[in-house]
Amino acid sequence: MPATTLQRFFNPRSIAVIGASQDIRTINGKPLHYLQRHGFPGRLYPVNPKYAEIAGLACHPDLRAIEDDVDLALIAVNYKLVPAMIAQCAAKQVPFVTIFSSGFAEAGEEGRRVQREVADLAARGGIRICGPNCQGAVDLFHATAAAFSASLDPAPFLRGPVGFVTQSGALGYSIFNMAQESGIGFSHVVSTGNEMDLDAADFMDFMLEDDNTRMVFAYLEGIRDGAKFMRLADKARQAGKPLAVLKVGRSETGSRAAASHTAALTGSDEVFDAFARQKGIIRVDDIEEFIDLAEALKGRAPLPRGRGLGIASISGGGGVLCADTAEAGGLAVVALRPETSAAIAHNIPAFGSPVNPVDLTAQAINTADGFANVIQAMLADAGVDGLVVVITMIVGEPGLRMARDLVRLCREAAKPIVVAWTAGPALMRAPFAVLREGGVPLYHSPVRAVRALGRWMHYGAERGRHPLAGPAGPGASEGPPPLGAEVRDLLAGAAGALTERHSKQLLGAFGIAGSRERLARTREEALAAGEALGLPVAMKIDSPDILHKTEARAIRLNLADPRQLAEAFDEIVANARAHAPTARINGVLVQEMIPPGVEAIVGMNRDPQFGPVVMFGLGGIFVEILKDVSLRIAPLALDDAQGMIREVRGYPLLAGARGRAKADIPALAQALVDVSRMALALGPRLEQLDINPLIVLPEGQGVRAADALVILTGGE
Amino acid sequence: MPATTLQRFFNPRSIAVIGASQDIRTINGKPLHYLQRHGFPGRLYPVNPKYAEIAGLACHPDLRAIEDDVDLALIAVNYKLVPAMIAQCAAKQVPFVTIFSSGFAEAGEEGRRVQREVADLAARGGIRICGPNCQGAVDLFHATAAAFSASLDPAPFLRGPVGFVTQSGALGYSIFNMAQESGIGFSHVVSTGNEMDLDAADFMDFMLEDDNTRMVFAYLEGIRDGAKFMRLADKARQAGKPLAVLKVGRSETGSRAAASHTAALTGSDEVFDAFARQKGIIRVDDIEEFIDLAEALKGRAPLPRGRGLGIASISGGGGVLCADTAEAGGLAVVALRPETSAAIAHNIPAFGSPVNPVDLTAQAINTADGFANVIQAMLADAGVDGLVVVITMIVGEPGLRMARDLVRLCREAAKPIVVAWTAGPALMRAPFAVLREGGVPLYHSPVRAVRALGRWMHYGAERGRHPLAGPAGPGASEGPPPLGAEVRDLLAGAAGALTERHSKQLLGAFGIAGSRERLARTREEALAAGEALGLPVAMKIDSPDILHKTEARAIRLNLADPRQLAEAFDEIVANARAHAPTARINGVLVQEMIPPGVEAIVGMNRDPQFGPVVMFGLGGIFVEILKDVSLRIAPLALDDAQGMIREVRGYPLLAGARGRAKADIPALAQALVDVSRMALALGPRLEQLDINPLIVLPEGQGVRAADALVILTGGE
Repeated sequence: MPATTLQRFFNPRSIAVIGASQDIRTINGKPLHYLQRHGFPGRLYPVNPKYAEIAGLACHPDLRAIEDDVDLALIAVNYKLVPAMIAQCAAKQVPFVTIFSSGFAEAGEEGRRVQREVADLAARGGIRICGPNCQGAVDLFHATAAAFSASLDPAPFLRGPVGFVTQSGALGYSIFNMAQESGIGFSHVVSTGNEMDLDAADFMDFMLEDDNTRMVFAYLEGIRDGAKFMRLADKARQAGKPLAVLKVGRSETGSRAAASHTAALTGSDEVFDAFARQKGIIRVDDIEEFIDLAEALKGRAPLPRGRGLGIASISGGGGVLCADTAEAGGLAVVALRPETSAAIAHNIPAFGSPVNPVDLTAQAINTADGFANVIQAMLADAGVDGLVVVITMIVGEPGLRMARDLVRLCREAAKPIVVAWTAGPALMRAPFAVLREGGVPLYHSPVRAVRALGRWMHYGAERGRHPLAGPAGPGASEGPPPLGAEVRDLLAGAAGALTERHSKQLLGAFGIAGSRERLARTREEALAAGEALGLPVAMKIDSPDILHKTEARAIRLNLADPRQLAEAFDEIVANARAHAPTARINGVLVQEMIPPGVEAIVGMNRDPQFGPVVMFGLGGIFVEILKDVSLRIAPLALDDAQGMIREVRGYPLLAGARGRAKADIPALAQALVDVSRMALALGPRLEQLDINPLIVLPEGQGVRAADALVILTGGE
Repeated sequence: MPATTLQRFFNPRSIAVIGASQDIRTINGKPLHYLQRHGFPGRLYPVNPKYAEIAGLACHPDLRAIEDDVDLALIAVNYKLVPAMIAQCAAKQVPFVTIFSSGFAEAGEEGRRVQREVADLAARGGIRICGPNCQGAVDLFHATAAAFSASLDPAPFLRGPVGFVTQSGALGYSIFNMAQESGIGFSHVVSTGNEMDLDAADFMDFMLEDDNTRMVFAYLEGIRDGAKFMRLADKARQAGKPLAVLKVGRSETGSRAAASHTAALTGSDEVFDAFARQKGIIRVDDIEEFIDLAEALKGRAPLPRGRGLGIASISGGGGVLCADTAEAGGLAVVALRPETSAAIAHNIPAFGSPVNPVDLTAQAINTADGFANVIQAMLADAGVDGLVVVITMIVGEPGLRMARDLVRLCREAAKPIVVAWTAGPALMRAPFAVLREGGVPLYHSPVRAVRALGRWMHYGAERGRHPLAGPAGPGASEGPPPLGAEVRDLLAGAAGALTERHSKQLLGAFGIAGSRERLARTREEALAAGEALGLPVAMKIDSPDILHKTEARAIRLNLADPRQLAEAFDEIVANARAHAPTARINGVLVQEMIPPGVEAIVGMNRDPQFGPVVMFGLGGIFVEILKDVSLRIAPLALDDAQGMIREVRGYPLLAGARGRAKADIPALAQALVDVSRMALALGPRLEQLDINPLIVLPEGQGVRAADALVILTGGE
């Protein structure tokens, strides 16, 4: 469904409230009350056989009695009555219905049954549903408060650029209230409830197309359709609208609780995190971080071009705190150019600091232009991509002057500025009013100021890196390539685990080199293979039924002379038979010894929400003890693969730490992209892939799959 | 100086303000103004030859003209005039002086000279100094606002349990203002400036003895005297008063900036962090975390006994967010006992969750006692050490009822409770007033609520673990043991690096086993040594001039037969001579091969602030690539050593991850304690110690120093 078709959901010409009540303390009474309170400009039709009139409006006994067309129906009746109401909506060709009622899938088997019934009726009637078990939707620019949360009590609304979608009605609408009281303006708020039909992604999609919305925030507990979110994230990137998500369930307990709470499969948080990273989604961890981010973006908020932070502080300590926070958060406290520092030095006392973090000292208040001059010099520095200004206890006229300077500077600057003014709002009423009025992002904590600006700077830097490429950069939009004959042969009739040999052949077909190797069915073939490959060699059992060759003691390395080869052949076959007497044994695989390199582990798994996920880690203790892995969702661009590689803690091992040889990182990145291509080309046939180890040879020498395991689902 | 002697600094009977002014906008005018505004009950003497009267008080031309005794003098004159004023104070036997003036050590060479002059005069006159370059001190319970920050404008003060010491006047007093506006009450605030005489630790020490103060907070940029802070931390533990510190300079840039800003050596942040961990100091990273912590402790705040968190939420999402935060912060979201869950289930609807995190659902508002019953059941669960209650959008009478329930529950509970009510203060004016009035810790962010309670729970759990032991648990208070004859011999005349053999002998004297080994001066001695030790053996050059034996190719391992031994002897000596022709060569060390185990690295360095610091890490990539080390300051209790071991990311390698043998962790912990004992026993003679590697053998088999390097300073 193109998002624009939700137009009449958010901006309906007429709304029927089914089950409306005169008691405005109830869920039934509130929607009509809030629609009127916030000046809904369309037509309102309360529906309830018990009343003749509600809130000055004629009440209808049922939907049929309304002569007008109805764009949106709100249903707040007992869940058992909902199917009948939906049938009436269908008869009346109502395009959109919001079901507030609970008692559906979240409540148990009976509820699930009724929800299915409602879904069927709606689908057949061509009705799109928001909910059930939701708190409704608000469009602030169209004065459509079609919801029942008490957070709609305060009037008027503060309109603004934030579109907000929430999978928790209670928490979401309370965030809305906190944000409104903090001065954050919204375009829409939607509580999605059980997402029987329309889901969070649908509403977010609409907001990305909406002109009033400049950023979309979502509170999520689980994702049903990863592919839809992938498309959404791409669309957000194209539109240049930041997408920020608070997704709970990071911890084991939290994830379990979220699953039981929403009845939705929450999915692996690691995969969601990879998705967010890959698609430039801003992930926040607290409801206040939403508010802080919106604060940073509330004014003009020029897009930062990089991660170079300038810090200008009235107090040395405040500047140091910002520097600590910035470096912990991956920003660079850039060295200012000499001319910048010289310009600053003219405007601050000798005991201040003209280098970043700049310490203006409290004497900044003593000259008329010193403060503004310093900020301007810093903004003019090419290394500075964004600026945080820390002010402590400056009151009275000097405080007001600073506030006015900041308003002007923010209005003119081509780089984002945030202010951390560490003082209480009561004492600072006057300067804070000037800043608020002037649209200057204002914080009280330097830490929160830097973190919020940092999110915006990371977003800007990432956006600069993938300008407006498609889903995942160049190449990603090509469809899966046709499978070659070799691949088709390997797949034909295969199911379950492939042998190492076949697994590596399949990898080879997608460009990932394995070892030179030959299958030997006899001792003599083994000797011949050894001679052909050149000694030393490795030997391993080749059996589709023995996946753990080490466990079966059916693997030998570094065999350097013919006698050893012959002995090894017999031993491997004997051990394999002893380990698994019924195993089909193809023979013994004789392999060249791969030269030493860094051992990596590369894998592919299928995530129920997001599909094929590529995994990367370093061998030895990194994956095993430290769980040090990075993930990305296929398709992977080369840039994504490079990111995965840099992300693991063991990265210095590849980059050549402490006199080690630098490993062939470009070849490794290409191998990750190849795995992604393979996953797309084979589609659901490829259930799982493990390359363990993938040997990353020194720079320029490539990578080699030393062992691999492909697991296929049954053939077509 | 016993802390109690600061009594007259904080609670003076009379104060002279030297350089007082009628202009209350100036630093000279403000102190008198604030002292009067906040009702200072003692006698006030403005001193300034320019005025006859200031603010209704007779003004004196100089200090001599005051007939009364003066307990405290405040100096706000040009720094060049300060020495003369101090001389007058000395003549008048003024015990305490606060110097607001700047232009001293922070300003350059001239200032440093004047500061030294002032220090000399003060010391000779028996005057204790706060400052210079500080904003002064406030004692809220004694109405002594002897400071000039504009954050003293609002009156009356909110008195309370927080004593606060700050090394940044501007930032510190702005934190004070923010906290006061947030409802946090203080006992004292002190800005310490250049700490020419009295330093942060002196003031904190006083507060630990003060009955009005229940917790001490400090904003620090650098520590001059680590030993003093160690004693302070012990005293705080004894007193049961939490010590919370915001120390900036965590990052490289931040640390450099802090050093240039304060002119103080800031010291290594890693060592400070280890100190905080070891001594149960609560380290915060943001000024708001101070406020959040004070909020958690503002009511009765029973001491939690462990890290088991109970979560009760009106919204499922809020509970999940708390669970995520708790687990990320090292708390346990404990499984409730069956009887607890049964009791909860009676009070919540079927679609709620009676397991932790408990989801009461919004229907909790529909019964009179359901909410309180659930909280009470959770508090009664033995696994729950603290409770967070999340409320979203509950307004009107139900909201008020919940607030009143919470006040009663907090008053009665033997476990700490915090409330996260995710809504704006304007909409929730009434219930929030009830909570504030009732002393219930209130947050708007579930994340901040859990983090603040978490700090308190970690503190309580640690305190329970070291009940009220001395400095570092049992054994730590024993003085350094007398050195044995063997140690005295090894030390006699030695300076600089000891050989591996002597280093290991020294370790052996303190109980840390090395390898069995013999020094061989000839091939024949080497063969005899090999026979005596049993083959295979390792052989290494023994020279005080060759520390890097591998680099010199003067080390061979796994020598299994006499021929190899003989060859190795010649080769090692030849390589050593080629590498360092002038090196003194004692011979070749022949060592048993130590059986395989986990390679650890144990070291000792001297920190300029804190003295001997013991370091622990695992060998291989852990220290080299991941910088995965833990630190503690000597003396170490066994408990500290166990903490160090558990703290490194590679710990599972010792604990027996993935089928590995469990390593001898008790022996490793004892070795760390032995290193600490050795550091104390040898004192400053021991400059540095590296045991690399220390082989940790399987459980029950001990540890062995396979190589070691001791560096001594010159002998006595």
